[in-house]
Amino acid sequence: YLKGVPEIARNKAAVDREKFLRVYNRLKAELIVDSEAFRYTDDSRAWVEKMLDYNVPGGKLNRGLSVIDSLRLLKAGAELPDEEVFLGSALGWCIEWLQAYFLVLDDIMDNSVTRRGQPCWFRVPKVGLIAVNDGIILRTHISRILKSHFRKKPYYTDLVDLFNEVEYQTASGQMLDLITTPAGEVDLSKYTIETYLRIVEFKTAYYSFYLPVACALLMAGEDDQKTFQSAKEILVQMGTYFQVQDDFLDCYGDPEVIGKIGTDIEDTKCSWLIVQALQRANPEQRQHLKDNYGKADRSSVLKVKKIYSELDLQTTFLEFEQESYSKLVSIIEKQESEALQAVLKSFLAKIYKRHK
Amino acid sequence: YLKGVPEIARNKAAVDREKFLRVYNRLKAELIVDSEAFRYTDDSRAWVEKMLDYNVPGGKLNRGLSVIDSLRLLKAGAELPDEEVFLGSALGWCIEWLQAYFLVLDDIMDNSVTRRGQPCWFRVPKVGLIAVNDGIILRTHISRILKSHFRKKPYYTDLVDLFNEVEYQTASGQMLDLITTPAGEVDLSKYTIETYLRIVEFKTAYYSFYLPVACALLMAGEDDQKTFQSAKEILVQMGTYFQVQDDFLDCYGDPEVIGKIGTDIEDTKCSWLIVQALQRANPEQRQHLKDNYGKADRSSVLKVKKIYSELDLQTTFLEFEQESYSKLVSIIEKQESEALQAVLKSFLAKIYKRHK
Ligand SMILES: [Mg+2]
Ligand SMILES: [Mg+2]
Ligand SMILES: [Mg+2]
Ligand SMILES: [Mg+2]
Ligand SMILES: [Mg+2]
Ligand SMILES: [Mg+2]
Repeated sequence: YLKGVPEIARNKAAVDREKFLRVYNRLKAELIVDSEAFRYTDDSRAWVEKMLDYNVPGGKLNRGLSVIDSLRLLKAGAELPDEEVFLGSALGWCIEWLQAYFLVLDDIMDNSVTRRGQPCWFRVPKVGLIAVNDGIILRTHISRILKSHFRKKPYYTDLVDLFNEVEYQTASGQMLDLITTPAGEVDLSKYTIETYLRIVEFKTAYYSFYLPVACALLMAGEDDQKTFQSAKEILVQMGTYFQVQDDFLDCYGDPEVIGKIGTDIEDTKCSWLIVQALQRANPEQRQHLKDNYGKADRSSVLKVKKIYSELDLQTTFLEFEQESYSKLVSIIEKQESEALQAVLKSFLAKIYKRHK
Repeated sequence: YLKGVPEIARNKAAVDREKFLRVYNRLKAELIVDSEAFRYTDDSRAWVEKMLDYNVPGGKLNRGLSVIDSLRLLKAGAELPDEEVFLGSALGWCIEWLQAYFLVLDDIMDNSVTRRGQPCWFRVPKVGLIAVNDGIILRTHISRILKSHFRKKPYYTDLVDLFNEVEYQTASGQMLDLITTPAGEVDLSKYTIETYLRIVEFKTAYYSFYLPVACALLMAGEDDQKTFQSAKEILVQMGTYFQVQDDFLDCYGDPEVIGKIGTDIEDTKCSWLIVQALQRANPEQRQHLKDNYGKADRSSVLKVKKIYSELDLQTTFLEFEQESYSKLVSIIEKQESEALQAVLKSFLAKIYKRHK
């Protein structure tokens, strides 16, 4: 989403990213020398370091970086003192750690093959199901980071509660997904828009959209529950819009640009596209969808895509995109705080009409 | 360990247990109507209820019940108000939830068959690897219970930190165990007493022994870090003694009394007995151990047991037991607080010379 952004801003983004990665190295070093609660052996220290490097820093880092971006906007664009940059980055990393925790375990449950262009962690030789415990280790690191850097902050308890609540929501959304679309069993009658929206809200939106902003609000000293509540409502809607885009790009995006070849159709995913198709299909089309959705062969995939095109889902998507955008702009503008408005608009600008 | 306990105390224990189980039902009901952070569907509510009933309340409940026992002793045996009994029981259940979380995931990693006399949760039809996420759900429930019943207590933040720290220690101990004794690979040279003690300390002692007492201390208003520190040191030693007994009983206990047939030898466990045997074996015995440890057939197991008996490990154990007991009594009596002394002595009395 940096297309059309002036070069100076692009450089700033690169510098931010580099600074952010330096914080990762500091946090990692602190975690593995940590001798207060656990006595590491050389082997266990090496294991944790390798596991962290493999799973934590290799993503797009959008979620993590957005804590600092949001904090700057909340402080009306003022230059942040180094200490604030460090703390905001540490919270950003906690979100990346949370994501790594969920992805390591999700890949095991989905029996996935690759993640971020390399074999899933549990497929690495000598790892196997030790990856389950590594997932837990990732989760416990969040508590360690929060405790060592935020314990004396007035918002520490709220911060810990926030991560706990979002973890609960994400795990609950994952449960809903797992029991609605169990591996090996296809029941398209369960792929309704209500189910879709519920899974997306809990599995994705809270941790990807609400959590970074809520972290920034806590750091900025916000203590009005109403502010958190309305930020939450708007960001959950934005997260839903983001996931619909993700589902759309999986089928219609340029693999060169999105960096992977979509397989939602082959994987029987409860995607926005199949939900829309099932709502609109005539009996014959519905039968074709039933017969071909979730099959790995090319001709089945093409048959599904043909029905998507008969139903003109590209137009449906463009309408949805336009409508979501207008709705979001109008509720954002109803926010009392201008600083919060700026944060929300910046999130929206980053995702509106994105191609990757 | 109720042998030799007068009938009236035995009835009291039964009543306590019944009251404790009623608290489980209340906590479960609260969790699954909980609509503040997650919107349940009928299916997901039924799933969680079944998963909880299968995994949480079916153990011996010693850890959970010991919170209330400890709290009573800390209050010099005074009758606890109903509200305190409820809160102490809720914390006891949080420990049982924590244990369920670790056991559900441990059984997956160990590819185990049964647990508490029934198939492991991940082996139940339709569950499979969804059990990984169920483990996480169990963990998130602890945060939910703590938040809904303790958020306004002055010790809330310490309580959350305590559970986080103990989770970190347990997961780290589990990691140590997993990388020291990886499935399918036997390297007896790694089975040293240092490694054994480190694994036991982190994987078992903190959550089984220190955590219940620390919960009771927080509820009783204790705020001197030194008290927590010395309780921790003593209880970790007690937890180690307990695990050595567990390993001894796995081989020499009466299956009728301990309720299962031990398989530590077949499972290549890093047990106290094999560690002692390796320390004492001559080259020939060591070779026999290498050839037979971790084999499932009866004759291999018997060969290992024969060497244990040649090395007279039963006597070694009795000496260890006696020495541990004396050491524990003497450091307990050095404690300043008599109430804490009573708690520690009660723990010790429950495990000294146990047969199950
Ligand atoms: Mg997946
Ligand atoms: Mg999945
Ligand atoms: Mg996708
Ligand atoms: Mg096991
Ligand atoms: Mg194990
Ligand atoms: Mg055992």
